[in-house]
Amino acid sequence: MTCALGIDFGTESARAVLVDCTDGRELGARVEPYAHGVIDARLPGPDDDVELEADWALQHPSDYLESLRIAVRRLLAETGVSPDEVVGIGIDFTSCSMLPTLADGTPLCLLEDLRREPHAWVKLWKHHAAQPEADRINAVAAERGERWLPRYGGKISSEWFFAKALQILDEAPELYARAARLIEACDWIVWQLTGVESRSACAAGYKAMWSKRDGFPPPEYFGALDPRFEHVVDEKLSRTLLPPGARAGALSARAAAWTGLRAGMPVAVGNVDFHGSVPATTVTAPGTLVMIMGTSNGLLLLGDELVEVEGMCGVVEDGIVPGYFGYEAGQSALGDIFAWFTRHAVPPEYHEAARARGVDVHDVLAEEAAALRPGESGLLALDWWNGNRSVLVDADLRGLLVGMTLATRAPEIYRALIEATAFGTRVIVEAFEHAGLRVDTIVACGGLPDRNPLLMQIFADVAGRDIAVAASHQAPALGAAMWGAVAAGAAAGGHATIADASSRMARLSGTRFAPRPDHREPYDLLYDEYRCLHDFFGRGGDDVMRRLKRLRNAAADADPVPFTQS
Amino acid sequence: MTCALGIDFGTESARAVLVDCTDGRELGARVEPYAHGVIDARLPGPDDDVELEADWALQHPSDYLESLRIAVRRLLAETGVSPDEVVGIGIDFTSCSMLPTLADGTPLCLLEDLRREPHAWVKLWKHHAAQPEADRINAVAAERGERWLPRYGGKISSEWFFAKALQILDEAPELYARAARLIEACDWIVWQLTGVESRSACAAGYKAMWSKRDGFPPPEYFGALDPRFEHVVDEKLSRTLLPPGARAGALSARAAAWTGLRAGMPVAVGNVDFHGSVPATTVTAPGTLVMIMGTSNGLLLLGDELVEVEGMCGVVEDGIVPGYFGYEAGQSALGDIFAWFTRHAVPPEYHEAARARGVDVHDVLAEEAAALRPGESGLLALDWWNGNRSVLVDADLRGLLVGMTLATRAPEIYRALIEATAFGTRVIVEAFEHAGLRVDTIVACGGLPDRNPLLMQIFADVAGRDIAVAASHQAPALGAAMWGAVAAGAAAGGHATIADASSRMARLSGTRFAPRPDHREPYDLLYDEYRCLHDFFGRGGDDVMRRLKRLRNAAADADPVPFTQS
Repeated sequence: MTCALGIDFGTESARAVLVDCTDGRELGARVEPYAHGVIDARLPGPDDDVELEADWALQHPSDYLESLRIAVRRLLAETGVSPDEVVGIGIDFTSCSMLPTLADGTPLCLLEDLRREPHAWVKLWKHHAAQPEADRINAVAAERGERWLPRYGGKISSEWFFAKALQILDEAPELYARAARLIEACDWIVWQLTGVESRSACAAGYKAMWSKRDGFPPPEYFGALDPRFEHVVDEKLSRTLLPPGARAGALSARAAAWTGLRAGMPVAVGNVDFHGSVPATTVTAPGTLVMIMGTSNGLLLLGDELVEVEGMCGVVEDGIVPGYFGYEAGQSALGDIFAWFTRHAVPPEYHEAARARGVDVHDVLAEEAAALRPGESGLLALDWWNGNRSVLVDADLRGLLVGMTLATRAPEIYRALIEATAFGTRVIVEAFEHAGLRVDTIVACGGLPDRNPLLMQIFADVAGRDIAVAASHQAPALGAAMWGAVAAGAAAGGHATIADASSRMARLSGTRFAPRPDHREPYDLLYDEYRCLHDFFGRGGDDVMRRLKRLRNAAADADPVPFTQS
Repeated sequence: MTCALGIDFGTESARAVLVDCTDGRELGARVEPYAHGVIDARLPGPDDDVELEADWALQHPSDYLESLRIAVRRLLAETGVSPDEVVGIGIDFTSCSMLPTLADGTPLCLLEDLRREPHAWVKLWKHHAAQPEADRINAVAAERGERWLPRYGGKISSEWFFAKALQILDEAPELYARAARLIEACDWIVWQLTGVESRSACAAGYKAMWSKRDGFPPPEYFGALDPRFEHVVDEKLSRTLLPPGARAGALSARAAAWTGLRAGMPVAVGNVDFHGSVPATTVTAPGTLVMIMGTSNGLLLLGDELVEVEGMCGVVEDGIVPGYFGYEAGQSALGDIFAWFTRHAVPPEYHEAARARGVDVHDVLAEEAAALRPGESGLLALDWWNGNRSVLVDADLRGLLVGMTLATRAPEIYRALIEATAFGTRVIVEAFEHAGLRVDTIVACGGLPDRNPLLMQIFADVAGRDIAVAASHQAPALGAAMWGAVAAGAAAGGHATIADASSRMARLSGTRFAPRPDHREPYDLLYDEYRCLHDFFGRGGDDVMRRLKRLRNAAADADPVPFTQS
């Protein structure tokens, strides 16, 4: 038997899986939480007195190594797999999560004189304090007509690499100067495993404006942001980027010692979690949309050519599967909306019914909601509780619900929220099609497809397409293992290509949701209404959402005034 | 001492109060529920087998008399007031609540051969089954250019007198033929007390398209609705209408016997509850808006002239206070919206907190909501959970809420709903002003002012006007007593005019809400946003609410389809 090891670094924990290379059978899995979790209040340390500002989100790089070490050791012990049977290892990571290091890879936060400096730590993907830098990056790019800008829907996010790097320069220039390297966490982990620095083309393509044809933005552009930033790429990054599945190096003796794995084992270049997991859903060619349905919804699609898609997050050649352009779009909230609803807007009777029946409150709501026909709630929502990522690329947009009467009940709202997210997906599907990309069928993975069949059925009804469900409940970790198998190669018991790996190691669950023909027409009508509200509130017909946000921010800064009742 | 008796016939009960004519002191009060309450499922009777259709709401006329009898007898006994000290009696009633009777006033439903006929019973104000008739009444009036139509905002309601009368003719023509009289319940009660039929100008003006200058619509109009309806006024109503405070007659010996009151005591003509209660809030002249704040919000204003106000419910000369034009507008839901919200959209934690503290959930929500500044919730609502009465006159409009994020909490929504109802009131105030009517100050009465100070404060902030609160918790009953005192006259120990009665018998509570100056600007900004959405969704910018209602009705008729998950 040969197997591959995949490690998926999430927001709260690392997950390791051992997968049989011949049939994709999962031999074992371990999840190990990070000791410090998400650091968003104060820095760790003996004194514990450095407080973080709002919107900061950091992590401790040692946590990654320790969670990896424990997970792999326990996995080997529990499965009884011999280190010799493991042919390759792949890594995926949240992104952009990045850190400054010395030239040898030592994180700056581990230096005694820098550990009290917030900018020395890992900036987690959801660190949102670099918005001023993102604004500058976008403004200067628009002004200069940077050719990479359209590949990212015309706007990059504060979560991305250069926004975070520029924030370090802006706020901690001396620390910036001491950082020999600025590096994605996935690349840093691979460096720790191999002793050799490598850079992921996937992460750089989706989060650092890099492309295979044009490379990074030119020094003049970075210089226009800040003269000290002009040579950031040559000074702190690398112009050598490896496509997914490339061998980044071999497991070092040192890493072999602390993990218990075999020294010399091939290690694949790092990957972004969503993107790396696409082949784990069986998709390695154009025509099938992958939906990664969790707290948010990630939509990934392969294409043969480079085209411009309205409001996409990014397109990267070889970014998902070598040989294709990988398109990414997204909905910034999916499961989060239903979680918000059940937590903050569902009255006690449904919670009590759930408790009495020993089920989740979602199940009680879904049961009643499933008995409704399209349109029967009389409600319509805009699913912008966390802004709109695609196709409007506007974080200031807000949720909307219309149609309430005194007879409106919680299950009706629940269904309207599901329908709104499905309409939001349909807008993205139509944007792909409008750009000339095929969306013949859909495969879903992530946490929601198994938990919420009503949601899946409504998505199929609204999209008018079959939705298959990936078998693996941990597609990112499986994908990482598959990329590890590709890095190992067929001769070593791995696979020659990701298509080979996918055909042997990935499968669908067998669950498939087919659109109900009689739901087509009412959902087309409702979708027309959704588009109408979508364009009115999202494209400037009424900027009320943005103005409400401004009023909100202004109000939050002032003190409340007592009543003047006399 | 002289005192007056007021009887307020509500939806569920009759309330009787005895009030000192010299100082308005309440000597005692009794509430007596109707034995049969609201009849909306099946007719009362030994067999109990006549089921009512949807939207029907009937009452039993004997309940009115019995509740009155018990209330008055107990009131006299409890207060020790001698019948000789009671100088006059006034009646107010929900409206339009109407019934068919024989020529002697016997309700048709008391006839053995008609008691199983739904149309023989009292149609309560909220009987909503006459919508087809209302539609016909409006269409024919618009077609003929009836001059009374603009006085009612261009549209009359299915709740009104001729819609209900026409429904009887449409659906039970033989019963219609046997009805010698069709009569408002307030007039029927006065008839029972005096033995003489009289008709309220207030009820006829607001609910039966009558005006002092033009009388009822012409026979040609009624004939155009149905040839058999041409002479409905002369056949079944009366062209003699008495203004508020007029003496309808003297208490008959028979009524004196069953009530325990003094025969010969003056009885005032009947009144509509909202309208009759205006002087009880101290208002008998133009310039002060009266808000009757309960499940809905009734807005009444006196004017010196007849003007056209957009979307008003009606204007009646002498309809509220003789000598003035009485303008009525309304919001079709007020307290109902907050009741809906707390019942159907507030999560358990607030209910638990309320239980733990022994307070109402409204109090817990209001406490947190009060700590917010205008706009801080980031939310904005359209308060159309029950349609929009004024100024849009459109029952098909629906509620809307915009601005939700994952951080939105129930108290923020609660406040946004309060703000929306306040904005809705401001739209009406501005419509009055635009028509040339003065709104210098506001007096509130009804159930909400004492229960919800946050609501009152926000109404004051948004309206930019002081809001005083009437002292009486039962303004309609007090108003009825005051009109009874006027019917008695000054010589008998009552009052010569309603202004005299008001100055002696009515007072404010002392509670007054003053607008907070620093809330002016943010609420002006939010109000602009409200107006923008109001006009977009209410005046045809996007008819999505109406289309959602149609989709809803179509969907409700079809069967649900099971999942096709495979």
